[in-house]
Amino acid sequence: MAENDSLQEFLTIAVDAAKKAGEIIRKGFYEIKHVDLVTETDKACEDLIFNHLRQHYPKHKLIGEETTAACGTTELTDEPTWIVDPLDGTTNFVHGFPFVCVSIGLTIGKIPKVGVVYNPIMDELFTGIHGKGAFLNGKPIKVSSQSELVKSLLATENRLEQSVISPTVDATTNRINSLLFKVRSLRMSGSCALNLCGVACGRLDLFYELGFGGPWDVAGGAVIVKEAGGVLFDPSGKDFDITSQRVAASNPLLKDAFIEALLQSAVRKLSMRIRSFNLQLSSLVTS
Amino acid sequence: MAENDSLQEFLTIAVDAAKKAGEIIRKGFYEIKHVDLVTETDKACEDLIFNHLRQHYPKHKLIGEETTAACGTTELTDEPTWIVDPLDGTTNFVHGFPFVCVSIGLTIGKIPKVGVVYNPIMDELFTGIHGKGAFLNGKPIKVSSQSELVKSLLATENRLEQSVISPTVDATTNRINSLLFKVRSLRMSGSCALNLCGVACGRLDLFYELGFGGPWDVAGGAVIVKEAGGVLFDPSGKDFDITSQRVAASNPLLKDAFIEALLQSAVRKLSMRIRSFNLQLSSLVTS
Repeated sequence: MAENDSLQEFLTIAVDAAKKAGEIIRKGFYEIKHVDLVTETDKACEDLIFNHLRQHYPKHKLIGEETTAACGTTELTDEPTWIVDPLDGTTNFVHGFPFVCVSIGLTIGKIPKVGVVYNPIMDELFTGIHGKGAFLNGKPIKVSSQSELVKSLLATENRLEQSVISPTVDATTNRINSLLFKVRSLRMSGSCALNLCGVACGRLDLFYELGFGGPWDVAGGAVIVKEAGGVLFDPSGKDFDITSQRVAASNPLLKDAFIEALLQSAVRKLSMRIRSFNLQLSSLVTS
Repeated sequence: MAENDSLQEFLTIAVDAAKKAGEIIRKGFYEIKHVDLVTETDKACEDLIFNHLRQHYPKHKLIGEETTAACGTTELTDEPTWIVDPLDGTTNFVHGFPFVCVSIGLTIGKIPKVGVVYNPIMDELFTGIHGKGAFLNGKPIKVSSQSELVKSLLATENRLEQSVISPTVDATTNRINSLLFKVRSLRMSGSCALNLCGVACGRLDLFYELGFGGPWDVAGGAVIVKEAGGVLFDPSGKDFDITSQRVAASNPLLKDAFIEALLQSAVRKLSMRIRSFNLQLSSLVTS
């Protein structure tokens, strides 16, 4: 009871911080973007959120995309730790594509306990408290009840900003190619945190991403997905690890089929090569 | 002047129809979807729009996704013709993903003259009148001023609903794979009309799609893109043909580079096959 009370208080403080940061994002979103505006906005939002959290919880640890990514990785400990992405969807922010958000998660004992994801452009506030449910603008949300992969809407992203390396792009699109045969359709919206919230409220049935920036992309959304009745796991089928930069999420009914499809998609490229080689070999032999 | 006056009146009537249909879509969007709700909503919206237009313009021709797709193609003539997609983004509608819209275009002499695209979930009304500009909720919009492909945000779609055929999926993802090396990032939102409007208001820099449903997907958006200062063309670089089920759109600065990238992406698969064959052949010869 005592922990639940404080979790509720933590959430209230985190929502305040997210809404204030959201104001800054909303203001910048509708402006002509000069070169430094993204960095400035990102930094201003992180400073605001960190100051707000420090003021209320001076002993809590802080991990932020801006600060931590610049200063090397910060180890996640059992202490209460706020993990913050002040502006998820920076490419969308630059272009004015309305999928941008603030993501704030609180871990205690390395377990995400409180999550806030706020899209200030669409004015959608997703919240979750461990054991107390997930909400969109105060109304309870839950994952979809879809049980068939072939009727499912899949979301993923193409990560190019960090590494425009041919094998990575090839692997990504080969994986997508394989999955496209098995699902209804694919969406790419450019925000990991909002994709998690999409699964949480049933707009999306399936989401996976490999190689995103860090725990700040998933810390807030993780609580929201779980509290909405969803499951989080590593795309290999192993347990979800918040520090691994790999995530998959769905409702429980789709989990096994989704993992199987993800595993098949990973081996598809290899088998395609072998098949292609065999075909060409036999055509050489018979010609 | 007389034509401009009547175009303005046509737009007003089309906006009325789009907003009324939008009400029906918004209502259904937040409901639990039973199997027939999509078809019912689609049909109810088309009936409403057709009745509204017929009441005001009994002599105008009508082409609609629902009616026409069911009854075979209707030839586009020089007569004033309303081309209507009552619900673009049906998969999004089913899943509650907020990219759905009503699209209404009017062609005179086969040229799109008036366009309305309304997203009732985000309450975004895009409008355009030939020679009179493009607007989002009444405010003028224009395409981006981006001139570098590598900094551009690209949108496209995976079309699977109609044909889950391996070569089609392979060709689509191979094309995407090739383009991903040349642009900043990729978005897939599930609505052709809203992708065109995204280009028109500068949220997106580039959009192409092959094999969409019919002229109803592009008739409204075409006017809006052009009036926002954008260009429409066939992905091969030829002139845009509203009946061809092929479209590309961008700002004028990006057009040439985009066409070149699209042409290269189309030949990439073939060249990959040849390279792969040669490599394997040489490994056979030397082994």
